[in-house]
Amino acid sequence: MRVRDLGEWGLLERLLPRLQMPRRGPVRVGPGDDAAVLRLGGGLWAFTADMLVEGVHFDRAWTSGRDLGHKALAVNLSDLAAMGDVEPLFGLVSLGITPQIPVNYVDNLYGGMGKLARSLGFFLVGGDTVRAPVLTVSLAVAGRVRRPKGLFLRSGARPGDALLATGTLGDAAAGLRILKAWEARGGKREGKAKRFLKTSHLPPGTAERFLVRRLLRPMPRLEWARRLAARGGVTSLMDSSDGLWRSAAILCRASGVGACLETEKLPLSQALRRWAQAGHGNPRDLALTGGEDYELIFTARPATARSLEAMGWARVVGRITHRREGVRVLEQGRERHVPRGFEHFL
Amino acid sequence: MRVRDLGEWGLLERLLPRLQMPRRGPVRVGPGDDAAVLRLGGGLWAFTADMLVEGVHFDRAWTSGRDLGHKALAVNLSDLAAMGDVEPLFGLVSLGITPQIPVNYVDNLYGGMGKLARSLGFFLVGGDTVRAPVLTVSLAVAGRVRRPKGLFLRSGARPGDALLATGTLGDAAAGLRILKAWEARGGKREGKAKRFLKTSHLPPGTAERFLVRRLLRPMPRLEWARRLAARGGVTSLMDSSDGLWRSAAILCRASGVGACLETEKLPLSQALRRWAQAGHGNPRDLALTGGEDYELIFTARPATARSLEAMGWARVVGRITHRREGVRVLEQGRERHVPRGFEHFL
Repeated sequence: MRVRDLGEWGLLERLLPRLQMPRRGPVRVGPGDDAAVLRLGGGLWAFTADMLVEGVHFDRAWTSGRDLGHKALAVNLSDLAAMGDVEPLFGLVSLGITPQIPVNYVDNLYGGMGKLARSLGFFLVGGDTVRAPVLTVSLAVAGRVRRPKGLFLRSGARPGDALLATGTLGDAAAGLRILKAWEARGGKREGKAKRFLKTSHLPPGTAERFLVRRLLRPMPRLEWARRLAARGGVTSLMDSSDGLWRSAAILCRASGVGACLETEKLPLSQALRRWAQAGHGNPRDLALTGGEDYELIFTARPATARSLEAMGWARVVGRITHRREGVRVLEQGRERHVPRGFEHFL
Repeated sequence: MRVRDLGEWGLLERLLPRLQMPRRGPVRVGPGDDAAVLRLGGGLWAFTADMLVEGVHFDRAWTSGRDLGHKALAVNLSDLAAMGDVEPLFGLVSLGITPQIPVNYVDNLYGGMGKLARSLGFFLVGGDTVRAPVLTVSLAVAGRVRRPKGLFLRSGARPGDALLATGTLGDAAAGLRILKAWEARGGKREGKAKRFLKTSHLPPGTAERFLVRRLLRPMPRLEWARRLAARGGVTSLMDSSDGLWRSAAILCRASGVGACLETEKLPLSQALRRWAQAGHGNPRDLALTGGEDYELIFTARPATARSLEAMGWARVVGRITHRREGVRVLEQGRERHVPRGFEHFL
């Protein structure tokens, strides 16, 4: 049997038990959540790792070195935000690079990572640099859990909870479509890494630019996670890296519950609406299944959810049901089919 | 300019300053040593990351899943041992895999990692699994520095110190030659990952088996590092992953000193001597430049060095000189040329 026969879910289901360690010693949260949590020297610390591979997670033709450096760190920090009130502190970066890559690109990669790091008081303390067939950026990051009550797992959702999302959804997926259309029109030239945003194929202020920027320059929702933890009433939390529908399915599986999402409630950006109106398809499909927005997906008791929505902190996108009901999507009161989301191995 | 024009040294020299952060906050040792050291919650912690890439660091034709899992963790733990008295505690593993890889191979990779981890009370707490063009194993590991006085940097060597090495050198490089010769004889078959050691191309007890095992199953010298720290008198420490000559050059650079190595003093295993006697070349060349033995390279005051040698803990392989003398190698009292070591990017 090959890995492609299992798919990513199947592989993770198979491998996780091999990693699973008894929850003794310093490990408070083991593999399977957005980050691991350990007790070290009296405090709680969250640790996570993410790897970005050229041709799988990014294309150098439309991702500048600065974009890539920013994003590689941002997606790792998003995993820390997905644990709650966590202060990112330091990380290690392992880089696999081809001998043919321009040194300037690698310089800018470090520059983009360094800029985001400095803005957060975050330290890049080391790592490894090796040869690889394609550019590979592997980060491991650590953050301090400010207080144990500010820590939220994927497994805390209960039937009756509301399901919420911060920000807007589907933007990054639209951004990817814009870049692919640009590529199909011949915008990508072999061997030359274009700085897509910087060289202004898209003037500032356009919907397209906003959407592409959402893909290439995601901002980890650390501050939102901190506010939500301070506000209280959150029962489970994760990030939307795999898209809302898939994230909801993962959260439901971890919590042993079901969920019912309503497409009318999906938070859509003005840019996504405008872009979609120009004939680019249904924005709700993108908001439902498009990944890489790096928003927070979480559950809360209904009263908390109403109050968060009233304050504009998050939008209710559905509710948690019993496990036997599975994860359903309603459109105008009727159940609808969900197009399959991004599967790395298929 | 491309990365290949700089080479690995040149690239590191260029990138390190971009990572270099002021030594404020929790960072005690930043980028550039075997591991970073941070003060977290009252204790000192060492963190390091290493990435192994198929076709660059290993060949699946001769590396079983178990061998690879073992080695990926071992080389990371070796970086912790290279800091001194460090207790490895937990790590994150990011895996880049091709859809074509047999699931069994990935199972065994986790099995090999898990076995070494369990033997040390070490936890694999999470990570990432993504698609990649070749198998890529990226680990980040953390260990507790048992006491501040048990921490040794690369930068502490002083003229007059002795330069020492634990164990024997050149074995892994000989192991690699044995595997390449086997491959040249047609031993490698496309698409089938042979478990080289397990399927006993080499019967137990042979020199070849010992040498290949040294390459595929390195043991991190954690216990030696602990003993050396307890004994005292060590002035600098690193591991020999890049081979003695290159490690000595790195250590000298970090310490601002020179060194004089003597080939007659190089510690050679019986297996390496026997294998070399069968016409496979000069064992001292391998001991001088061959990498991946994962022994400890360190410096100590002469009296300490004599005592360590008398106890059989390590062998004196040279002495530290003034910077202006550079890193020299003497053979029978005469300076000799050093064949260039392994350069990832060239």
